[in-house]
Amino acid sequence: MGNTFGHLFRVTTWGESHGGGVGVVIDGCPPRLALTEADIQPDLDRRRPGQSSITTPRRESDAVSILSGTFEGRTLGTPISMMVRNEDFRPEAYSEMATKFRPSHADYTYHVKYGIRAWPGGGRSSARETVGRVAAGAVARKLLKERWGVTILACVTQVQDIAAEVDPETFRAADVESNIVRCPDTEMAREMVARIEQRRTEGDSVGGIVLGVARNVPPGWGDPVFDRLDADLAKAMLSLPASKGFEIGSGFGSVLVTGLEHNDPMRNVAGRVRTTTNLSGGVQGGISNGETIYFRVAFKPVATVMHEQETVDIHLENTTVKGRGRHDPCVLPRAVPMVEAMTALTLVDHALRHEAQCRE
Amino acid sequence: MGNTFGHLFRVTTWGESHGGGVGVVIDGCPPRLALTEADIQPDLDRRRPGQSSITTPRRESDAVSILSGTFEGRTLGTPISMMVRNEDFRPEAYSEMATKFRPSHADYTYHVKYGIRAWPGGGRSSARETVGRVAAGAVARKLLKERWGVTILACVTQVQDIAAEVDPETFRAADVESNIVRCPDTEMAREMVARIEQRRTEGDSVGGIVLGVARNVPPGWGDPVFDRLDADLAKAMLSLPASKGFEIGSGFGSVLVTGLEHNDPMRNVAGRVRTTTNLSGGVQGGISNGETIYFRVAFKPVATVMHEQETVDIHLENTTVKGRGRHDPCVLPRAVPMVEAMTALTLVDHALRHEAQCRE
Amino acid sequence: MGNTFGHLFRVTTWGESHGGGVGVVIDGCPPRLALTEADIQPDLDRRRPGQSSITTPRRESDAVSILSGTFEGRTLGTPISMMVRNEDFRPEAYSEMATKFRPSHADYTYHVKYGIRAWPGGGRSSARETVGRVAAGAVARKLLKERWGVTILACVTQVQDIAAEVDPETFRAADVESNIVRCPDTEMAREMVARIEQRRTEGDSVGGIVLGVARNVPPGWGDPVFDRLDADLAKAMLSLPASKGFEIGSGFGSVLVTGLEHNDPMRNVAGRVRTTTNLSGGVQGGISNGETIYFRVAFKPVATVMHEQETVDIHLENTTVKGRGRHDPCVLPRAVPMVEAMTALTLVDHALRHEAQCRE
Amino acid sequence: MGNTFGHLFRVTTWGESHGGGVGVVIDGCPPRLALTEADIQPDLDRRRPGQSSITTPRRESDAVSILSGTFEGRTLGTPISMMVRNEDFRPEAYSEMATKFRPSHADYTYHVKYGIRAWPGGGRSSARETVGRVAAGAVARKLLKERWGVTILACVTQVQDIAAEVDPETFRAADVESNIVRCPDTEMAREMVARIEQRRTEGDSVGGIVLGVARNVPPGWGDPVFDRLDADLAKAMLSLPASKGFEIGSGFGSVLVTGLEHNDPMRNVAGRVRTTTNLSGGVQGGISNGETIYFRVAFKPVATVMHEQETVDIHLENTTVKGRGRHDPCVLPRAVPMVEAMTALTLVDHALRHEAQCRE
Repeated sequence: MGNTFGHLFRVTTWGESHGGGVGVVIDGCPPRLALTEADIQPDLDRRRPGQSSITTPRRESDAVSILSGTFEGRTLGTPISMMVRNEDFRPEAYSEMATKFRPSHADYTYHVKYGIRAWPGGGRSSARETVGRVAAGAVARKLLKERWGVTILACVTQVQDIAAEVDPETFRAADVESNIVRCPDTEMAREMVARIEQRRTEGDSVGGIVLGVARNVPPGWGDPVFDRLDADLAKAMLSLPASKGFEIGSGFGSVLVTGLEHNDPMRNVAGRVRTTTNLSGGVQGGISNGETIYFRVAFKPVATVMHEQETVDIHLENTTVKGRGRHDPCVLPRAVPMVEAMTALTLVDHALRHEAQCRE
Repeated sequence: MGNTFGHLFRVTTWGESHGGGVGVVIDGCPPRLALTEADIQPDLDRRRPGQSSITTPRRESDAVSILSGTFEGRTLGTPISMMVRNEDFRPEAYSEMATKFRPSHADYTYHVKYGIRAWPGGGRSSARETVGRVAAGAVARKLLKERWGVTILACVTQVQDIAAEVDPETFRAADVESNIVRCPDTEMAREMVARIEQRRTEGDSVGGIVLGVARNVPPGWGDPVFDRLDADLAKAMLSLPASKGFEIGSGFGSVLVTGLEHNDPMRNVAGRVRTTTNLSGGVQGGISNGETIYFRVAFKPVATVMHEQETVDIHLENTTVKGRGRHDPCVLPRAVPMVEAMTALTLVDHALRHEAQCRE
Repeated sequence: MGNTFGHLFRVTTWGESHGGGVGVVIDGCPPRLALTEADIQPDLDRRRPGQSSITTPRRESDAVSILSGTFEGRTLGTPISMMVRNEDFRPEAYSEMATKFRPSHADYTYHVKYGIRAWPGGGRSSARETVGRVAAGAVARKLLKERWGVTILACVTQVQDIAAEVDPETFRAADVESNIVRCPDTEMAREMVARIEQRRTEGDSVGGIVLGVARNVPPGWGDPVFDRLDADLAKAMLSLPASKGFEIGSGFGSVLVTGLEHNDPMRNVAGRVRTTTNLSGGVQGGISNGETIYFRVAFKPVATVMHEQETVDIHLENTTVKGRGRHDPCVLPRAVPMVEAMTALTLVDHALRHEAQCRE
Repeated sequence: MGNTFGHLFRVTTWGESHGGGVGVVIDGCPPRLALTEADIQPDLDRRRPGQSSITTPRRESDAVSILSGTFEGRTLGTPISMMVRNEDFRPEAYSEMATKFRPSHADYTYHVKYGIRAWPGGGRSSARETVGRVAAGAVARKLLKERWGVTILACVTQVQDIAAEVDPETFRAADVESNIVRCPDTEMAREMVARIEQRRTEGDSVGGIVLGVARNVPPGWGDPVFDRLDADLAKAMLSLPASKGFEIGSGFGSVLVTGLEHNDPMRNVAGRVRTTTNLSGGVQGGISNGETIYFRVAFKPVATVMHEQETVDIHLENTTVKGRGRHDPCVLPRAVPMVEAMTALTLVDHALRHEAQCRE
């Protein structure tokens, strides 16, 4: 249970790290959207392991196939099934995981929940699972762009204590892609890369913050009281591996100021209702207000480190375990397309919900 | 749409601030749970306006009636309908709201989404809507306590820059209820109350942080990949009015340390798998690991302030608006039972999901 | 669980036969629909017990209150909560039911499922539960009529072996309401009434068939492969108390003819695609084709009869039980508004789904 | 939308008749069930085209692959993805379908709903879509058998006017499989086969009735008021291609008798509550009562016939169309495993729901 996201644009992902492959079924995508693998592959390439010196060296081409739901290059309105084969099988690299729980991984919790566990590579809890999300997210982004003019972007703004100032309103995709850490501030990006490489050398890992933005979202999306747009974004982000926190607009910083300081004044600007500040982050009362939506997601440092750590084995004996083989010192660059994908999936679902309930 | 929470323990709330009342229907509550109004009223009293000098002075007795789903003091397994009448109607106090959008409220977004708006008192976006959540949450808490021994608590840990140190493992309900701001650190509580009263005098408002905890949750609850326990908690919390952020365990602080520092070592303690630290916050890979679950929720300062602010009216003319009448300087004390309720609703749903899928 | 119907126009009913009342919450109704109690009461009056000599004599005024979701006579887009108080409490009339299971009622199955049972009046399994459905159905019918011009009707076409010929295309509401059995064929209606009265005199009961129709449904509603329009209608009808069968269009009769005989030829009629016969019943491949949708629902004879019957008590001892007090010899006249309501709820949900996915 | 079935054992099918393949994802299957392709292939072989002289001659091996959700031959509790490649591509055989709507097929309704249509082979409306259902149904049947001892069977009982008497309590799988029409009454089966072959020679087709049964279902499954077990079975059956009607127990025949005649008397038999007749069909008040569940499904004659028929083309011009190429004179033998699969999927979902809500 729990592998479907969305209410009208329903995405179901499947696949383990070391099984036959990973994939996704989208149910509810509107018909007649132009769609081929070429629309999806670029985002998968940005999510792919082995893309740079600061990510996991696992070798996967991650070439996507669309198995259903399109005809002559257009969506049919029927389920879109997409799949990527697993290639870099190395179960032997994980043999120790068959009996030992890696600290702060999901080994123990899967074991205790299901009473069985696909130990090679982390099974379903592997970041490999996000292939399906990113593939579906690419479809959602295309639809959002073509039908509503919505643009979705994400970038890294912080690695440990190295923080960049990034304006949610103005940074561009090209800036994000200009460096391997995906931070639009080139200077800070250089520092971030150095830090990650240092940690990699130490056999350690780092976390940081990803900023997600959605521009040009029309006012009116979001379904209070439970399915507020910000609530669904929070769920979407916390469903990503290694994420530990979410804040929208002023976020945790909002607690320091007063109501008078925090409120976003409203003005008629060229016939549209605008706010002159945007501490709300584009969402008020759970509904988009037409301003840029922006939020931050905290990712903890990757749990796999090349050091001996205390743990327990499947017989509940105390022991130690040490990360071996492929070492991913920082999930952040690959988290950027994941955040974009989950943002797109959240928004497109609410876009369709809004059409259903509120358009005459 | 969007007014139902949960998959197996399904809660649907209804009601506007100034209509006939507010209420909730629970579908999926197990049968034979002892339940009367006396189990629910105490939590509603903690949520009630007018309970202290630092909350809104609206006068509501908030007496709950159970209309269905119980028989001779026990639940039937059928829908439990509960209702509270609205009493303190003062639409005249809101007449200005009929034509003006209050900044950083949901007035404009409801207007633009639905093309109609119950302007007296904020309608559905009022905190009054949480009556139904708290009533349902009381049922969920009782079930969690009786069937699985789970205890849920929340408290205020920060008001603006006044921060208390609270240990998620040890603070008690009695400590929380020992003062009107609901912070278990009595000394800091005094400062917090003073700050809130000062802001109230200034016609202004403050925000802060609520800590939520769930103790004694068995390992195994949570449904990756989308319905992770932490993801559903994040959604639950961001669905509360005025919340702007959520972090679990180490949260945003996790980005500063390395993987080696952040990992929670595991040990066999008295035959149980335990972690010797709990930076994970009781959830790993989206599934509870048996440690205390704790998280923090940021609440922005209440948007209603007794000052003239720039805004726009329903004809899109620039104008100003000033809060009048009942002034709630701080939502935090009343947010405590709300956080507890949403925590309980999230956990009980996952408890039942776990029974369905994983118990033989 | 199981008390919500619909995906976008979500209806949750609550209430037992002898509790505080019965009601419904609608989540997802579009905003700005004119709606007051006067739109709902007429359908409830047609469902009401005690309306004629051939239905149950229970006395209920069934006056509905709208508790939320409207403002100044229009829907808000927020949950619409409606309620009817129970008035004719006579638990003493049911005291024997506290310990004995009535044959072919739901007494035993509720007892064994939930381990507890609201024995007075059948609790949740009482036809009283349909109050909420009929109230919600009235809202759905209004929306269908105003927005898409769809008309929904039902009538009785058979009581035991007394069968009327009714043309789904042409019978009118006034014909249906012209007699107490709700059969538009006045002559057969007279026979039906006589038969029901005879059975009532005998302390026995009868079943029959209700024809449901939806006219002017646009082509394109229905969501294969599982949520076909006919599949959702079948579920809707079988969810009504005492229903035992459903057939659409040619139904069970279709098995007797060949494919060539059964196919509906297609013609361009005045610029629209029409079929020259309608054995399909207005649905092809699970999607409406623009022709009149019609189907038949079989209702068994009411299980309560004034005769001693063999049964078992809650201690599993063999015993007998005899219906006492209020005797409903035929559910059919009251089933007519129930069938209309469930038809409307099914169609309106698919109408909104169609808007969401297929409208550009 | 509409391609997912079930609430806890969730099945999502995908695939068109002539795309890359067809498949299914199961989310919510309990962990540790022994499962390999060998458990699934036999049911797919019974569904496969080309299996006998009285079904479609399309050539498909329909070899299933399990792509995820199992490890070392056991289910993981994670999504089970299964897939079958399409092999017998012959789009040229369908070229006429590119521009003409076949009468009583879904060509026109898909065209009008989605504005695009995968015309080769009927796309998503092809019976080929049921591959995914049958594969998932095999998993559900295995779980039902192993965990609750439930047996599910179906058989053909009528072809046109040739009707066999089949006792739901006693017929065996071996009897069903003893002949190509899948009717356990060997003598009538011979007549049925002759009739189908005659119709095939005539280029025509026939329909009939499939009986579905579930034996040894424990009392207590089913979720009133909407998700009654019989209501969900009705939906499941009407979601199958070509089905036109559903009746449970006495079904449409129930309308002819009186309540006294229809009620199933109850007796304590060997310490269990039993009914001495079973007109209810094993379900009372929407909940299983421990008796054999049985129901009948009407399937219309296949719409493809080798005769010229009146129709309309995509430009709305009147024209004619004639079936060409592969001719399936009777869907019934292949409908048997489809009915079994949908029965299993319905029951297993309710089994898990019952565990969640009602087991202490």
